[in-house]
Amino acid sequence: MRSPFDDRIAACRRRLEAVGAELLVCSPGPNLAYLTGFVESPSERHVLLVVPRNGPPTLVAPAMYGSRLEPLELPDVRLWGDEADPLAVLEGVLEATLPERGDGATVLLDDRMWTAFNHDVRALAPDAEFGLASDALEELRLRKDDAELAALRRAGAIADRVSLAIRARGEALLGTTEAALAAEIDSLLASEGGAEPAFETIVAAGPNGARPHHHPGDREIERGDPIVLDFGAFVDAALEAGTARYPGDQTRTIVVGDPPAEYERVHEVVREAQRAAVEAVEPGVEAGEIDRLARSVIDEAGYGDAFVHRTGHGVGLEVHEPPYITAGNDRELEPGMVFSVEPGIYLEGEFGVRLEDLVVVTEAGCERLNDSPRGWEVGEDVGREQ
Amino acid sequence: MRSPFDDRIAACRRRLEAVGAELLVCSPGPNLAYLTGFVESPSERHVLLVVPRNGPPTLVAPAMYGSRLEPLELPDVRLWGDEADPLAVLEGVLEATLPERGDGATVLLDDRMWTAFNHDVRALAPDAEFGLASDALEELRLRKDDAELAALRRAGAIADRVSLAIRARGEALLGTTEAALAAEIDSLLASEGGAEPAFETIVAAGPNGARPHHHPGDREIERGDPIVLDFGAFVDAALEAGTARYPGDQTRTIVVGDPPAEYERVHEVVREAQRAAVEAVEPGVEAGEIDRLARSVIDEAGYGDAFVHRTGHGVGLEVHEPPYITAGNDRELEPGMVFSVEPGIYLEGEFGVRLEDLVVVTEAGCERLNDSPRGWEVGEDVGREQ
Repeated sequence: MRSPFDDRIAACRRRLEAVGAELLVCSPGPNLAYLTGFVESPSERHVLLVVPRNGPPTLVAPAMYGSRLEPLELPDVRLWGDEADPLAVLEGVLEATLPERGDGATVLLDDRMWTAFNHDVRALAPDAEFGLASDALEELRLRKDDAELAALRRAGAIADRVSLAIRARGEALLGTTEAALAAEIDSLLASEGGAEPAFETIVAAGPNGARPHHHPGDREIERGDPIVLDFGAFVDAALEAGTARYPGDQTRTIVVGDPPAEYERVHEVVREAQRAAVEAVEPGVEAGEIDRLARSVIDEAGYGDAFVHRTGHGVGLEVHEPPYITAGNDRELEPGMVFSVEPGIYLEGEFGVRLEDLVVVTEAGCERLNDSPRGWEVGEDVGREQ
Repeated sequence: MRSPFDDRIAACRRRLEAVGAELLVCSPGPNLAYLTGFVESPSERHVLLVVPRNGPPTLVAPAMYGSRLEPLELPDVRLWGDEADPLAVLEGVLEATLPERGDGATVLLDDRMWTAFNHDVRALAPDAEFGLASDALEELRLRKDDAELAALRRAGAIADRVSLAIRARGEALLGTTEAALAAEIDSLLASEGGAEPAFETIVAAGPNGARPHHHPGDREIERGDPIVLDFGAFVDAALEAGTARYPGDQTRTIVVGDPPAEYERVHEVVREAQRAAVEAVEPGVEAGEIDRLARSVIDEAGYGDAFVHRTGHGVGLEVHEPPYITAGNDRELEPGMVFSVEPGIYLEGEFGVRLEDLVVVTEAGCERLNDSPRGWEVGEDVGREQ
């Protein structure tokens, strides 16, 4: 029986053909997980997957990984022990697939490959030209398959349930520190079925909300504080062998009690910007157009300078990946693309507001992967609404 | 007042002079933390520190990092907004420090720099030669300064206290799953003052102990199971600006009840191997000699094939860094070097034993950074012993 990874390797080889590259070398990270199901963090140890345009892929890995690799049923695994020279092993693989020091051939290297390994490959193929693995793989990873979409939907639902649970606490949120609430969110994400937080959970209260990437600290939540809550958990995708993790990523901004004077208007502007952008998502629209639409709502309301980041980022095996929803990006949207739509307004010294949902592009438009309330009100009885 | 980072930048520039390089480019990770105190994870956004041999360093970073960078008081920060082209900013910096497309100059790139950024720098300096940042920085980072040693001692003491606390539970450990015990260790590390686990905590019971990098799972701890416990937490170093994290890393193998037949002998062999290796640590000895000594004890006992990894790794801003205590490494030990000594014996299908302490090389020999009991017995009354 063919695994999804066999199909992905085959598609990768067709892409190498299409871009005129001889082979691709991946290191631990999302590309390796995508092609083999082997999920591993980068380290100083040589773990390299070589995918030639013609011929089966070879994984070079430390001997101690042997038992973890067995279930993946890779056609060719070359293990090296601590006393061995992994470069000699790699050299053998490259000599077989890339004769004559790589003369005239194009070799694609993993975008996330550490420079130490990049230089090792270059030294073994000094006459090759080098490009990025994304030249071949981006087109494949941009369009999520059914297993990937199922995992992303599950991750979205987990974030929604936690968002509802936090909102339901209402007055009980007062006096909690940002850091304590972030820890509680992480624990709720786990109990709702998340594998681990997909990024450092953001809880930013009052003026801290004006920093888009605030690290939760000792500030206690006070009545009237706008609170930016940005979180999500990884879930494991059900694939035949190995596992691969897909993240949730959702932002809401809530207030216990009466918000500051300007707040309600700002929240409504952000909400309208998000609505306008999401409504425009459909195949054929350029990514930059989605950014432009969100930005124009905020510009027209007079807050253009306070929207200090892009409108969104793709989400898949990476929490940030193409397509980027950025000014001028002429990448056309296609069914199966998944990305965040997350406009924000940041008023230095006062507060910030950000609203974020993930969307998947469908044939007809898009589907939101998040569905928890987007208003700022808290309490048990805040129902679901668009 | 000079910060430790001014001194490190100055030392870095002297090293560039010594190795004949024109400049060094760092990306988020340990080298950037070492040189500036800025701790950040790598991402798709361009964050690059350029340190020329002559002249002050420049940090290129996204605009949204501005407020986090201010306390670092870097002499030259160039922020780029989401609508800007970070490569144009980088080009301006490189043109000022590296004329004529880099012709004839050597540029050192961060060993952990992602290939995507590596290729960006190469495109802007097509006629330069490229090397690794470690060519300049390894000599500096190998010898820990007082602030670094203080943090590593704190991290060692935290691991010791948690190790004692786990051991004291004795019979209460029975029936706990590996994963639950790992979670409990992580929580103890935090309550003892650790910032976060320095790596995935290993709890490997019974036959799982034969896999050196086992991921804790559903197996319940049974009477007579040898249990490999390998963990440590990061602590923040007290530096003038910014923070930098230093890890603990300690392994003990314990048993509740009577161990399997061969176990006591195997544990004693590993303990003797560790003792012999640690006792030999002093300035001037080659790293490979420490590995050889540990290995020879295990070889002579007839378990040579079951010691499947190197004897140790350096520890500092990275959990694994030079010096590596590996066969044939002719690097001579020097005062201030910190590394693990962690021999192990792994009997497939039966159990594993590993004992690990961190040591710092002193003028006269070495100091252990871990001091919790190394025997296998559990209970409240297991005292401290060498």
